[in-house]
Amino acid sequence: MSGTITEKILRQHIVEGKAAAGEVAALKIDHTLTQDATGTMAYLQFEAIGIDRVKTELSVSFVDHNTLQTDFKNSDDHLFLQSAAQKYGIHFSRPGNGICHQVFLERFARPGKTLIGSDSHTPTAGGIGSFAMGAGGLDVAAAMAGETFRIKFPKVVGVKLTGKLSDWISAKDVILEVLRRINVNGGVGKVLEYFGPGVKNLTVPDRATITNMGTETGCTTSLFPSDEITRSFLEAQGRGEHWQEIVPDENAEYDEVIEINLSELEPLVALPHSPGNVKTVREVAGLKVDQVAIGSCTNSSLKDLKVVANALKGKTVSQNLHLTISAGSRQVVEHLIDSGEMKYLIQAGARILENTCGPCIGMGSAPCSKGVSVRTFNRNFEGRSGTKDAQVYLVSPEVAAATALTGVLSDPRDLGEYPKIEMPEKFFVNDNMIIRPRPFEEAKNIKVHYGPNIKPLPPFPPLPDVLRGEALIKLGDNITTDHIMPAGAKILPLRSNIPEISKYVLEVVDNNFHQRAVEKNGGFIIAGDNYGQGSSREHAALAPKHLGIKAVIVKSFARIHLANLINFGIVPLTFENPDDYDKIEAGDSLEVEIGNLQSEVFLHNITKGTKIKLLHTLSELDAEILKMGGKLSWIRKNIAE
Amino acid sequence: MSGTITEKILRQHIVEGKAAAGEVAALKIDHTLTQDATGTMAYLQFEAIGIDRVKTELSVSFVDHNTLQTDFKNSDDHLFLQSAAQKYGIHFSRPGNGICHQVFLERFARPGKTLIGSDSHTPTAGGIGSFAMGAGGLDVAAAMAGETFRIKFPKVVGVKLTGKLSDWISAKDVILEVLRRINVNGGVGKVLEYFGPGVKNLTVPDRATITNMGTETGCTTSLFPSDEITRSFLEAQGRGEHWQEIVPDENAEYDEVIEINLSELEPLVALPHSPGNVKTVREVAGLKVDQVAIGSCTNSSLKDLKVVANALKGKTVSQNLHLTISAGSRQVVEHLIDSGEMKYLIQAGARILENTCGPCIGMGSAPCSKGVSVRTFNRNFEGRSGTKDAQVYLVSPEVAAATALTGVLSDPRDLGEYPKIEMPEKFFVNDNMIIRPRPFEEAKNIKVHYGPNIKPLPPFPPLPDVLRGEALIKLGDNITTDHIMPAGAKILPLRSNIPEISKYVLEVVDNNFHQRAVEKNGGFIIAGDNYGQGSSREHAALAPKHLGIKAVIVKSFARIHLANLINFGIVPLTFENPDDYDKIEAGDSLEVEIGNLQSEVFLHNITKGTKIKLLHTLSELDAEILKMGGKLSWIRKNIAE
Repeated sequence: MSGTITEKILRQHIVEGKAAAGEVAALKIDHTLTQDATGTMAYLQFEAIGIDRVKTELSVSFVDHNTLQTDFKNSDDHLFLQSAAQKYGIHFSRPGNGICHQVFLERFARPGKTLIGSDSHTPTAGGIGSFAMGAGGLDVAAAMAGETFRIKFPKVVGVKLTGKLSDWISAKDVILEVLRRINVNGGVGKVLEYFGPGVKNLTVPDRATITNMGTETGCTTSLFPSDEITRSFLEAQGRGEHWQEIVPDENAEYDEVIEINLSELEPLVALPHSPGNVKTVREVAGLKVDQVAIGSCTNSSLKDLKVVANALKGKTVSQNLHLTISAGSRQVVEHLIDSGEMKYLIQAGARILENTCGPCIGMGSAPCSKGVSVRTFNRNFEGRSGTKDAQVYLVSPEVAAATALTGVLSDPRDLGEYPKIEMPEKFFVNDNMIIRPRPFEEAKNIKVHYGPNIKPLPPFPPLPDVLRGEALIKLGDNITTDHIMPAGAKILPLRSNIPEISKYVLEVVDNNFHQRAVEKNGGFIIAGDNYGQGSSREHAALAPKHLGIKAVIVKSFARIHLANLINFGIVPLTFENPDDYDKIEAGDSLEVEIGNLQSEVFLHNITKGTKIKLLHTLSELDAEILKMGGKLSWIRKNIAE
Repeated sequence: MSGTITEKILRQHIVEGKAAAGEVAALKIDHTLTQDATGTMAYLQFEAIGIDRVKTELSVSFVDHNTLQTDFKNSDDHLFLQSAAQKYGIHFSRPGNGICHQVFLERFARPGKTLIGSDSHTPTAGGIGSFAMGAGGLDVAAAMAGETFRIKFPKVVGVKLTGKLSDWISAKDVILEVLRRINVNGGVGKVLEYFGPGVKNLTVPDRATITNMGTETGCTTSLFPSDEITRSFLEAQGRGEHWQEIVPDENAEYDEVIEINLSELEPLVALPHSPGNVKTVREVAGLKVDQVAIGSCTNSSLKDLKVVANALKGKTVSQNLHLTISAGSRQVVEHLIDSGEMKYLIQAGARILENTCGPCIGMGSAPCSKGVSVRTFNRNFEGRSGTKDAQVYLVSPEVAAATALTGVLSDPRDLGEYPKIEMPEKFFVNDNMIIRPRPFEEAKNIKVHYGPNIKPLPPFPPLPDVLRGEALIKLGDNITTDHIMPAGAKILPLRSNIPEISKYVLEVVDNNFHQRAVEKNGGFIIAGDNYGQGSSREHAALAPKHLGIKAVIVKSFARIHLANLINFGIVPLTFENPDDYDKIEAGDSLEVEIGNLQSEVFLHNITKGTKIKLLHTLSELDAEILKMGGKLSWIRKNIAE
């Protein structure tokens, strides 16, 4: 991986360890971001660490998830976030200002910086050449407190782009093509680094669409060079001084290379219930659709919505379905109004929602029973839309627009001529909904606002040498964080209240799980491959911890979730022999000797009278953190020393 | 009341009875409207009546309440409403098209027509000279089936307007002044008919704001003349042919006259928790505010939002609070975009919500805990905002805009010069989100779509001669329909599912009520004056009926709720001597001899050993309907005969 931009950026940020694939490296983090659904917990953790001012170059707190406000909880959280941001030196993007990744790209992201964000789609900023990773809120809190962020140094996959996208084909089709090839776990332990002559044919927001949804491959992050196109974008945002060139060496060595000819792509669609379940639109065309939803952090840029507006101009949305639009930012909306293109959307009958995540995380716009929903979003996990039996299809804005007009899943190339889009030379810059940090002397007296739904963290006692309990549940492959800790309009508002939100753990797959875990006083979760794929939400570890889950024993883990388990004192273990998965049944009584997690780990299935060897990928440090009961205790000790 | 416009319109519509105050008159109904929260039930009832095509001149079904779609229920309801509208010959205004009263005013309402709507703010159309009344869904269903609508012929209060509104004072201040004078029950049994030289100084949307919120006085309806200003409005909507002049005779006689000099008004505010609790803004100015919400059926017209946009132009919403905007219709939004004024709102940091009722009915944007919310809406009942301990203040758009800028309740006259507003000569007319009825031959084969949350109506058996049970609860004065059957994001989606929604009856005042009612197998509700004020929601009768409530015994009733009780077979009774209210305690065992409801009614308090004389205002017909168990049985019999 020598000569890659991954290497160039990381070399400048390594504080401990070395730049070799598979080694643990501790990175200096320049920037952090949080959104509200994970942010409340991140700032509670920052407070628990006990620092009075962030130590990063830039930290930004966004509100874009919990904005429906069906009762006091969301509004109370907004007050908490705003006051905490003001007190601790964090920029605060007010509700309605836009979706974190879109606004961060427009107003904050810089080539060459490291960024961690308590949202799994933080790699969006990779589109501008920032090394941007999703992380648990506690890791973000630790970074704000000046701690390094430890990662297993990734392999670098070079994604060589050649050619140019045809009319009606767009960046979303590129990332769907990547997913078609490597599926939802093909990126694990890797960075997807885009290079080649096709790169120059993609704008920064195009690149950001690709790096955003790269998350669905399970990769550490995705990254584009910072080139002249990046410079133009930053200049158009009035931030030309933030540009620096970061391009790979001509003879850069990649651990693997994937080649995609942009000219050969055609409109693609990810079928229910996996972003990796990709087909051509032609293969599925004609399917009757109940809803089309355009926007989200993947496809809510100005260009995306301009294409949609012009495709809908003078036409009317099909009577079969509803079309919703969630723009990415106020900047996008202002341009659409200024150009008159917002009128085309309204005239066609689109329902304009707030500039938030909205339908993507089930915050409103849930489809009808058994509804077919076609979305420009990045995930189509079962139930995530808010309707358990809905079928969600992921597509480009072009496919979404064509489908909205016809009422059936449609190839946009049948719409006729591709609209000519005029992009502004300078974007409207209006940061009046971003509250900047105040000087420390002023800020330190600010009182943080805690509403009645904001509860303190549960305790994290040290772990014993032997874990005992029942296999509370046995799950299959690809269990997502949406299965473990669902989101949606009912549950997201409970994110700052662990006792309450714990009632919904694994509810999607087994609605007695919570009760059983409480009755049995905790126990073990058994699962297959890629356990914990999806979002960075640490509640998928925190809430099981509150229910007494001692270890999760699986065939393999998704990266961010693995880190979250360690952070909150749940032991993540894998089968040495994957077939041993078959030797445990739900209800079996288990004992796991973990000792100090330095030597071998064995599971005794008391019920079956068998002994199974387990593995872990824990570093010495991970083991130390786990045995202390989790990372919060460890950071506190570290800072105290 | 001779020579009034009330008399002129009603004389042309009386089918039975006579035009004399206090007499029961059966009216021919020309137009109906429904919104989705009451509409699903209204169309289920229409289906239960068994007619295959509406018999009105015009019926329109709107979707504006249940639009958050936090799960499948709302979307399923939309499909039900759309398919039922298509099948039975009803216009269907698609979700996102706008708020029923605003869209009806723009596109449908006609001077001189009678209109009933399953929404208490249906009198909005009185601003254009339509005799428009709120009614229960069953009455609307019956009107669609060709039945007359029976009312107690109202007294006519002439509200004489003189002078002209000063800068920063608007129509909302006129209706707040009316409420300040006659309070929330001052209109009971009356029509508020506006006349005098000041009328010509009010636009149709201004007039509609006044007639809309006239509902809060408890009146039958409110009415403005149809004059040259009405003609201009209709012409600007491309509906000049719908105009006819309807003005009072010069010597018209009113039962009472209230005189308001528009020139003398100043900005007013209704304090928590009653629209009748009115003070001047100056008296309350300086109160710290957490939220400002602009829009709703009362104040979401183009002029309202133009004033707000121009007041906010170039400024930023206070950091103290959030500002939300819910425009009344797509027409309003299109004009705001076209004129560039929407940009002023966005630039100032307003959060633009869908064109729906939204925060007014607690569908999102709930204030923070103990939050102070300043709203341009028409109701501030406790808990209606979605936050139980929120304090809601009702104001004009001008006061709301000033408050949004300062962060504290503010008199807008301190903002400086009043913005000069330019209104369009012709409104943009785009009815592509209104699905028109299809010819009967096509429509009759349409299949109505019933989602799993749409449950059939409960049965309505005939009433016995003696009602027995416990006084399940004893309530005070001014119990609203929001107390009896709350709305909000959690409960509104249950409107088509009576068994489920019944669990929330009176929950706001006593969260054990449902359980007690079920355990005791029903019983009686005891209350003070003005029981059932507020909305037309028949669920406030239907759900108690499902819980076995046999009679409601109070000091006095609000009009629409009284009608709903009769419609669903709950006997509405009042104390002959209001002091007898003190002779009943919650838990007392009661027997009420109702016989055939033609002779005297006595209550025996078995627990206390006392006998109390009760009254009712039931006509012979009402008594007949009640004894049959409710109106649905009666209509079926009537139509069959």
